[in-house]
Amino acid sequence: MSFDVLFQAQLDELKEEGNYRIFAELERQCGTFPKVVNHHDDGKRDVTVWCSNDYLGMGQNPKVVQAMVDAVRSCGTGAGGTRNISGNAWHHKRLEEELADLHNKEAALLFTSGYVSNWAALSTLGARLPNAVILSDELNHASMIEGIRHSRAQKVIWKHNDPEDLDRKLATLPANATKIVAFESVYSMDGDIAPIAEILDVCEKHGAMSYIDEVHAVGMYGPRGGGVAEREGLMDRITLIEGTLGKAYGCVGGYITGSHALVDFVRSFASGFIFTTALPPAVAAAATTSIRHLKESSYERDMQKRQVARLRARLDAEGIPHVNNPSHIIPVMVKDPVKCRMLSDILMDQFGIYVQPINYPTVPKGTERLRFTPGPLHTDDDIEYLVMALKTLWKQCAISHAVA
Amino acid sequence: MSFDVLFQAQLDELKEEGNYRIFAELERQCGTFPKVVNHHDDGKRDVTVWCSNDYLGMGQNPKVVQAMVDAVRSCGTGAGGTRNISGNAWHHKRLEEELADLHNKEAALLFTSGYVSNWAALSTLGARLPNAVILSDELNHASMIEGIRHSRAQKVIWKHNDPEDLDRKLATLPANATKIVAFESVYSMDGDIAPIAEILDVCEKHGAMSYIDEVHAVGMYGPRGGGVAEREGLMDRITLIEGTLGKAYGCVGGYITGSHALVDFVRSFASGFIFTTALPPAVAAAATTSIRHLKESSYERDMQKRQVARLRARLDAEGIPHVNNPSHIIPVMVKDPVKCRMLSDILMDQFGIYVQPINYPTVPKGTERLRFTPGPLHTDDDIEYLVMALKTLWKQCAISHAVA
Repeated sequence: MSFDVLFQAQLDELKEEGNYRIFAELERQCGTFPKVVNHHDDGKRDVTVWCSNDYLGMGQNPKVVQAMVDAVRSCGTGAGGTRNISGNAWHHKRLEEELADLHNKEAALLFTSGYVSNWAALSTLGARLPNAVILSDELNHASMIEGIRHSRAQKVIWKHNDPEDLDRKLATLPANATKIVAFESVYSMDGDIAPIAEILDVCEKHGAMSYIDEVHAVGMYGPRGGGVAEREGLMDRITLIEGTLGKAYGCVGGYITGSHALVDFVRSFASGFIFTTALPPAVAAAATTSIRHLKESSYERDMQKRQVARLRARLDAEGIPHVNNPSHIIPVMVKDPVKCRMLSDILMDQFGIYVQPINYPTVPKGTERLRFTPGPLHTDDDIEYLVMALKTLWKQCAISHAVA
Repeated sequence: MSFDVLFQAQLDELKEEGNYRIFAELERQCGTFPKVVNHHDDGKRDVTVWCSNDYLGMGQNPKVVQAMVDAVRSCGTGAGGTRNISGNAWHHKRLEEELADLHNKEAALLFTSGYVSNWAALSTLGARLPNAVILSDELNHASMIEGIRHSRAQKVIWKHNDPEDLDRKLATLPANATKIVAFESVYSMDGDIAPIAEILDVCEKHGAMSYIDEVHAVGMYGPRGGGVAEREGLMDRITLIEGTLGKAYGCVGGYITGSHALVDFVRSFASGFIFTTALPPAVAAAATTSIRHLKESSYERDMQKRQVARLRARLDAEGIPHVNNPSHIIPVMVKDPVKCRMLSDILMDQFGIYVQPINYPTVPKGTERLRFTPGPLHTDDDIEYLVMALKTLWKQCAISHAVA
């Protein structure tokens, strides 16, 4: 087919750059996570996952698994329609109540993914509010960027995590603009955390709406897992808090929380909410159980913190450079897509360690990295083995550098 | 909060028009579908669903339920990452192989929803192919419209299901344009079916790519459930077939199928595919089982056809007007949002019949309707009871018209 030539040309470019993606094929097994089975051409092997966003292992928590099994058995496998047309389940409503409570907001709205929640909410706010201007942190996630783009509202980029730059940019906008400041709490690729209080000071000074993405924080930060904004006592100052059920909560789906009017507005006008089949009620049931568990249990969070600190300390002790940051994410910069892939392949093939190379377009070209996310289920031995493997590779790299 | 005033103003407008949406809260119970429990302010009641997109009741098929339960027990509740970063499960790959086989294509790609599959595929094709022009049927679904809009490619609207108009419009385009013709097989709100062969003739005449959305057809049309294009022996002439796992297959998720190069292209460049958590492996397992079942079993399709024909015949016999079409969808036009909501409320409250009023923005204002989707699990008694209820209401309407 002649179109294939067009497709192949762009794929070949990706391959030449070293940015062509090959997915590792994994089979998770309840009770063994972060150990999984890797299916490859030659058969199967056991590997330890070091790059999962199931940060706390809740995807195999027995209560969460049981809640999903029970709901599948009682309600079936799918919702059967959009939320408006026969797909609105009792389980969805309970989950939205749980989410509103988690963030101490009046209401919440569930989406099929975190990507869709950002895309749909920002595109609806930007498109429908009078004279909307969206001020976007320069490192915001693709889902926010695409939502803003789709809204066709005026867009202003401010310097990453820089409230002073935001202040200057807000000051240039006309009084009648509806200003929406969009940012994240934990930036997932560098693991840095936004100065939320300072950003909110600036928003309030200029009468701007604040929109925070806490997808890499919910479940993990704050006494009830409400995110960094909960930990810092700032949730009530934020207009809209967006989060996910697909990372620390171990399921799938996204959401927004805010005032009744805000949530009703997005519910009533967002194409990406209206015209799509609702999540299976069983997913909602599992997520509700996961959120409730992490509201009460700090064990997973405490163990995660311990293992993150432990890995950092061991990397430091062995002289393996990593990006320092105040979150649970440990990036080891490689800065070359081909080398990054090579390191990842060796770790998988020779050591049974799975850490995906992070390359363009997830991060800018030239900032390729390995990104480790230690969790409560990584043992001290897992950490020791990982550090040993990295040490071996780093030594080989040093040798190859010396020889080259 | 001052923003609430902005939100509320637009919500009030919706309410005044009668287009404000109130979701029915339902609890599906395996084994009883299409009977469900409706939760409302005064308590619970049993109702029969007449507007589900779980067209064949596969959402409670024992094999599909068991496949999902088994996979949740073995793999847990979530995928734990994007397809690229630790979220690519063995179950996803098996499902994609099953989908490629279903449509007799080289490859398939799974998305979190049918909405996202349309949005992501069309926005990627339109944005990245040289001189792309997307020719879109005027009644295409919101997800296609938003995907085309997002691509910022040139867009040409052609008259609904009119190959001659498409031909004229293609003829005006320059030779160097990459032409993409996007349309659906079954249009879900009117239930009419596209003249696929004629459209493909026109595409081939002009060297245009063909993109068909079969979400309201897969599972239900064709000897193996491959859709209307399978039934008519046309799958091999179509560049890209898009479908869903959330309707006849009873689960959730969307997909595209096509050549290796096409699928790899979308996989490698589509933001809405790359930057989102993969569907739970258990959803993929359930969907795979559902597709396999409907490849082999025609029982559900045959029974659906029988009950659709039966309801149409009974409506005709009682003089209740409905839109004639060659599909499984039976629209009863009301053409007023307030009356449509009123009829729906009376059916629910007095008869225990649930059929959601279909209003703007799902259909244009002034074309509000009740939309019935009879399935294999509706009994003859269910049909009789529905017709009796509608007859009662139509008689009351006639009386109120005579009195007014």
